[in-house]
Amino acid sequence: MSTHQTQVVIIGGGPSGLLLSQLLYRKGISSIVLEKHTREHVLGRIRAGVLEHGFVNLMREAGCGERMDREGEIHEGFHIAHQGQLDRIDLAKHTGGETVMVYGQTEVTRDLYDARDAMGGMIIHEAQNVQPHALTETRPHVTWEQNGETKRVECDFIVGADGFHGVSRKSIPAEVLKEYEKVYPFGWLGVLSETPPVAEELIYARHERGFALCSLRSRVLSRYYIQVPLTDRVEDWSDAAFWQELKRRLPQDVAAGLQTGPSIEKSIAPLRSFVAEPMRYGNLFLAGDAAHIVPPTGAKGLNLAASDIHYLYHGFLDHYLNGDSGGLHGYSEKALARVWKAERFSWWMTNLLHRAPEGSETDLRLQRAELDYLFSSEAAQVSLAENYVGLPY
Amino acid sequence: MSTHQTQVVIIGGGPSGLLLSQLLYRKGISSIVLEKHTREHVLGRIRAGVLEHGFVNLMREAGCGERMDREGEIHEGFHIAHQGQLDRIDLAKHTGGETVMVYGQTEVTRDLYDARDAMGGMIIHEAQNVQPHALTETRPHVTWEQNGETKRVECDFIVGADGFHGVSRKSIPAEVLKEYEKVYPFGWLGVLSETPPVAEELIYARHERGFALCSLRSRVLSRYYIQVPLTDRVEDWSDAAFWQELKRRLPQDVAAGLQTGPSIEKSIAPLRSFVAEPMRYGNLFLAGDAAHIVPPTGAKGLNLAASDIHYLYHGFLDHYLNGDSGGLHGYSEKALARVWKAERFSWWMTNLLHRAPEGSETDLRLQRAELDYLFSSEAAQVSLAENYVGLPY
Repeated sequence: MSTHQTQVVIIGGGPSGLLLSQLLYRKGISSIVLEKHTREHVLGRIRAGVLEHGFVNLMREAGCGERMDREGEIHEGFHIAHQGQLDRIDLAKHTGGETVMVYGQTEVTRDLYDARDAMGGMIIHEAQNVQPHALTETRPHVTWEQNGETKRVECDFIVGADGFHGVSRKSIPAEVLKEYEKVYPFGWLGVLSETPPVAEELIYARHERGFALCSLRSRVLSRYYIQVPLTDRVEDWSDAAFWQELKRRLPQDVAAGLQTGPSIEKSIAPLRSFVAEPMRYGNLFLAGDAAHIVPPTGAKGLNLAASDIHYLYHGFLDHYLNGDSGGLHGYSEKALARVWKAERFSWWMTNLLHRAPEGSETDLRLQRAELDYLFSSEAAQVSLAENYVGLPY
Repeated sequence: MSTHQTQVVIIGGGPSGLLLSQLLYRKGISSIVLEKHTREHVLGRIRAGVLEHGFVNLMREAGCGERMDREGEIHEGFHIAHQGQLDRIDLAKHTGGETVMVYGQTEVTRDLYDARDAMGGMIIHEAQNVQPHALTETRPHVTWEQNGETKRVECDFIVGADGFHGVSRKSIPAEVLKEYEKVYPFGWLGVLSETPPVAEELIYARHERGFALCSLRSRVLSRYYIQVPLTDRVEDWSDAAFWQELKRRLPQDVAAGLQTGPSIEKSIAPLRSFVAEPMRYGNLFLAGDAAHIVPPTGAKGLNLAASDIHYLYHGFLDHYLNGDSGGLHGYSEKALARVWKAERFSWWMTNLLHRAPEGSETDLRLQRAELDYLFSSEAAQVSLAENYVGLPY
């Protein structure tokens, strides 16, 4: 059995794992990334595209911000369509100049791969049966299989950045872990199309027929979503049916300007709120989707992973460079405080904009009143804006 | 049958009806108030005690503000107890100096009676079988019975300020009226006691065992509430049991300072959100509880009645003094816009602070996250404060 040595093993080669690996490298801390899938598979994932300021800064600190800063688009606001009208949330005005960056997760991941490759970073793809061991011992290790061979890496710490279905969270004894979950009675049908976006900024639409979202990845790549029943399957939705339903949920003048085209990706995702506590067990640290899921309304998923990485990164710096383990010891509590606030925001924004299938007419009117109040109150808009651009780390 | 003539008949001699009657009188507009109960009964009602700025101003405009301004207490903030700590919402700071006035509804009603008496205002008590007629005709009328005799008053307009169970709303044809309702799975057990309040400002408590509220009417009269199951009856709760349960839901140092005493009133009230639309039918105008009910968290009930009276009062002024009926025509829409925002706020504050019997642990954590966010965010506190002192008319 071949045995490696490193300081930090990172399970999961998505953007969080790669980002942490790159950040640590630049401070002289060694790491190995273990990824179950191929690089092509990881890059094929169509995910989020709205990056908080904090995420953008981490990319820059990792030395991976050049293309993002060149090709990404700064958004100073977004729109909410309701009752046939289009209202705007001015993020920059309400947060003292903060903004979000629209830059696809796929591009983030690609930039991070390029950086790790250039630095000779060790990313092991198609690592099968990854298993962390001896989590509560001073020197834990991780095993995996590759080409029929069992391999092993010894380390100081393990970071579980392997998503909701990954092995890391499952390695924490059930009696230690507490899981909180809320499943929503609807899903998002998403379409990616090589068409110019219908608007320069995102449009979130609250409509009697259900939620819709006009998002984008670039000037020529649009991402649209509509709320659908959980029982719907992708095969039920032709491109034509999708565009027709999307148009019905948008204000008329917006719908009139919508350029449609063939979908290059179409999928249905359920909406879920999920938190696992604690986020640390012994020398294993969970980050991102491995520990928490938010419904996508509000675009907090990837950004919440980034804030975990921020806390972990600084925890490792303090540990390795200053001999101070306080940051690592306080990681779970600190990360969870921000996680729960983002969970609250994502849950609130989901409820604000979706049509609850079992909701009463009173619920609908309260929802409308909340939107009316929102656009009549500076404070309510500031509250939404400060959450949307990201609460402070 | 004796027949009276007047300009406005007001059904209901509670604070809203009396306030409108007094306001109109001072502008030379005649009215008659019909009240089903005795004056003693009306004055015996133990209700709200937190008055918005808008209500306070109407009392002054009605010439009834003298004792209120002398004996009422200005509150510049209130407290929320959660997770064993006491946080404060600084109303004055977050609203540019706005405050609320603590002055019991009983005192408001008494002051209004005194004013109406002094002006020779016509308030008919113990009016039985009150019935509005010919609502869509130019000259509607109202009949009632008294001492076995049927009486009748002809008027231009009828104001229904006779509460949730009153005849006014029921006089609107069912096919015209739309009702929205939400019933909460808990009630408030309230105790009035002649003891000094535990704190100078109100304390709203969110506790695992359920909501509690320390309110007050004056320096020597306290009003306390605890959330109880809807199945509880007043007889189930001795004074001792009430005080014990209240103390368990308060932070220790607050509980330690609580002065208990015999209850002089004890009752259980259900919590309800209710709105009837429209608030005008022909020449009948609904005001206050006749058209809408809020759960008491946030103290919006009486204040919402006052904003209806404000809109109606100005509508009548425009009609009678300027020959402009625009205000009366727009009354329902204008009043309802503010009503729904107050309904939203009351629903939100109720959910923020109560223990939902069927709520999951995830719901509890989201609730806690909302409180954590609230006290970490200036914008969130401003939003709460601006609603609590009252949104603009």
